[in-house]
Amino acid sequence: MNKILYPKKEDWAKILERPVNKGEDLEKVCQAVFDEVARDGDEALKKYTWYFDRVKMADFEVTNEEFEVADREVAADLKEAIGLAKENIERFHEVQLSGINEYVNANGFRCWQEARAIECVGLYVPGGSAPLFSTVLMLAIPARIAGCREVVICTPPGEDGRVNPVILWTARLCGVSRVYKVGGIQAIAALTLGTGTIPRVDKIFGPGNRFVTAAKQMVGRYGVAIDMPAGPSELMIVADGTACPRFVAADLLSQAEHGPDSQVVLVTCVERLVEEVERELREQLDRLPRKSIAEMALKCSKYVVLNSREECVEMANLYAPEHLMLCVEDYMAWVPRIRNAGSVFLGNYSTESAGDYASGTNHTLPTNGYARAYSGVGVDSFMKKISFQEIRPEGLAYLGKTIEIMADNENLTAHGNAVRVRVESL
Amino acid sequence: MNKILYPKKEDWAKILERPVNKGEDLEKVCQAVFDEVARDGDEALKKYTWYFDRVKMADFEVTNEEFEVADREVAADLKEAIGLAKENIERFHEVQLSGINEYVNANGFRCWQEARAIECVGLYVPGGSAPLFSTVLMLAIPARIAGCREVVICTPPGEDGRVNPVILWTARLCGVSRVYKVGGIQAIAALTLGTGTIPRVDKIFGPGNRFVTAAKQMVGRYGVAIDMPAGPSELMIVADGTACPRFVAADLLSQAEHGPDSQVVLVTCVERLVEEVERELREQLDRLPRKSIAEMALKCSKYVVLNSREECVEMANLYAPEHLMLCVEDYMAWVPRIRNAGSVFLGNYSTESAGDYASGTNHTLPTNGYARAYSGVGVDSFMKKISFQEIRPEGLAYLGKTIEIMADNENLTAHGNAVRVRVESL
Repeated sequence: MNKILYPKKEDWAKILERPVNKGEDLEKVCQAVFDEVARDGDEALKKYTWYFDRVKMADFEVTNEEFEVADREVAADLKEAIGLAKENIERFHEVQLSGINEYVNANGFRCWQEARAIECVGLYVPGGSAPLFSTVLMLAIPARIAGCREVVICTPPGEDGRVNPVILWTARLCGVSRVYKVGGIQAIAALTLGTGTIPRVDKIFGPGNRFVTAAKQMVGRYGVAIDMPAGPSELMIVADGTACPRFVAADLLSQAEHGPDSQVVLVTCVERLVEEVERELREQLDRLPRKSIAEMALKCSKYVVLNSREECVEMANLYAPEHLMLCVEDYMAWVPRIRNAGSVFLGNYSTESAGDYASGTNHTLPTNGYARAYSGVGVDSFMKKISFQEIRPEGLAYLGKTIEIMADNENLTAHGNAVRVRVESL
Repeated sequence: MNKILYPKKEDWAKILERPVNKGEDLEKVCQAVFDEVARDGDEALKKYTWYFDRVKMADFEVTNEEFEVADREVAADLKEAIGLAKENIERFHEVQLSGINEYVNANGFRCWQEARAIECVGLYVPGGSAPLFSTVLMLAIPARIAGCREVVICTPPGEDGRVNPVILWTARLCGVSRVYKVGGIQAIAALTLGTGTIPRVDKIFGPGNRFVTAAKQMVGRYGVAIDMPAGPSELMIVADGTACPRFVAADLLSQAEHGPDSQVVLVTCVERLVEEVERELREQLDRLPRKSIAEMALKCSKYVVLNSREECVEMANLYAPEHLMLCVEDYMAWVPRIRNAGSVFLGNYSTESAGDYASGTNHTLPTNGYARAYSGVGVDSFMKKISFQEIRPEGLAYLGKTIEIMADNENLTAHGNAVRVRVESL
């Protein structure tokens, strides 16, 4: 090990530098395997299991018999150790649901979690045709509530080298005083790497064009996180006979005007509603300044008529839309059945525009089916949780044998030793 | 819009298909910009702002004068609208800290969040020299507690086509009965795309070799999430005069035996401790079965001697280690000052091995400095939050003007219309 005595502050970053993970170019290999698995399914798995692992497999799923053999083969002391570990892991993870976040074991140890703000965050606010000051609200407010120490904004300058005044005014209103007039790939690079002017941040938030999106996909290599993967905006409306065709048409259009690739889907069991919405939509479309954009989006959009409410719920969950409007009479009965969506708007008066701007919910939401696994931006997105544990000598005496047995069975002897040297000292 | 009447279930996925985002190859462009920004800092920003945006910028930071000009330029009605929106967004986000998660506005609307389990998750358990059954515990237990409907495991078969019995026994113990004998890139591809045998999942968890790591980096393109980016395991120990050199050496070795790229750092203000730990370390090292691996890791590892406790805290936060041991007397006083770490072990008896196996905390933790922005795996990792809002007619009447003004100022007329058609109807 290398000894470094009383280093100067300016050398600290250098001392703590991690070896850069060049990440060999395995992407082509991966893409080839992915393409073949997409095409050939299990046959491709067999091929590559032979190719990489030199094993010929007829079936992949472990059978009941194999589980039973395993049950006979595992030693009793290891079973007992794993069982005790399982109990502690279960307890500590169960309390996470309750928000208590602490597990105290009476034998002399305790584990807990504490939330901390992410220290330094960068917010990207797109420029271009519309000044998206609402993005400033949606990102700077939760950042401040979380307690981020440093919140900076990058936004592209206009042709005159200025930033739209509404963006600046809103930034100040939300307590952000460091705004940089730089956009695109170079802005994301600056937030990732730091420059003389712009600080390196820990996490980058915000929407952007295809250049910004591509640049955000790269920052992980430099140890910087991003809010979520980006995709075109989406709205699914589920409507029953109580829905107002005029309202529904207006919402479909508000989604369609975002961009030519916006996704718009209306799902209903009421076939006549489709005709009524279609009529309203034509009428309203003609009066829109962004008519040509909306028309392009509508070309790929869909009305889907289904047989039952059950089917409507199921289709919404299958699609996992960014925005889901439930224009149905008994919408509260639907709530517990919605499993995949970014943000849900209930009833005829909860228009999606309200959530985009002013009702309080965040408009930075998972698109592209990511609502199956991602939440929208919230205060959580600007924090992380650290786990802590305090094991007293008697606690380690209690846990010691379990840890030793497990470590030895994973062939990690030094892990067992770290327990042994302590228990021996007691 | 396209009309689809009463489609068959088997056609649903096809109907809901999103246009595939080919993702043009902007990676090379991005890499060039990142490399130049890393080298030239602000000069590179100037160059690319001219190249992409056709604006010559001398400085990037918005000045106080510019903020003041902006303040004069923004119309009063827009300021008022943004102010009201800010209030609602603040309220809804503030309650997220409390765990109440609901914001009720007396004027007739409310917003709340509900957590839902991610429905289908895939756990990758590495094979190879050691059977990592502890990984099964650390992933399957929170998945079950979160309530994931489908939990499947992929793990590579050995040369005999079998899976280590301890992995199978532990999987069953944790309620996972679908285990597939497939590993590497092809396992990640199968979980991402689905095959005849293996279901497509929404999120993939678990460690793996460089092939698995590379494959996990690709799954985002297919709409599948991953737990967190991977890197070599790390341990930082901060020790004072009360630390036991024998214990410290054992912990450093337990980290070093993970792999030749493991990161090990000891930070202290007590110079003599370094010599004592070094002596113990030599002695213990000789008895380790994985001595050669540990030796390689130790070559890049560091002892750092600093001037003060303040400096030790600061260095720990700067490094943001995956594992942080605080072998100091008054460790509880340090807890509130730790801002960046995956998992923290307090005092002389809280050995890292305990958290790896049995005390209850999760051992799937952010490496490579990601602890600045990421939490370790917990029940949260298997859930997402959906936001809901219910706006009654009077609520929309109250919010309406605000939304209209903001939408019109972002040039999104159809967003304003969605409000107008409703308010007109009241």
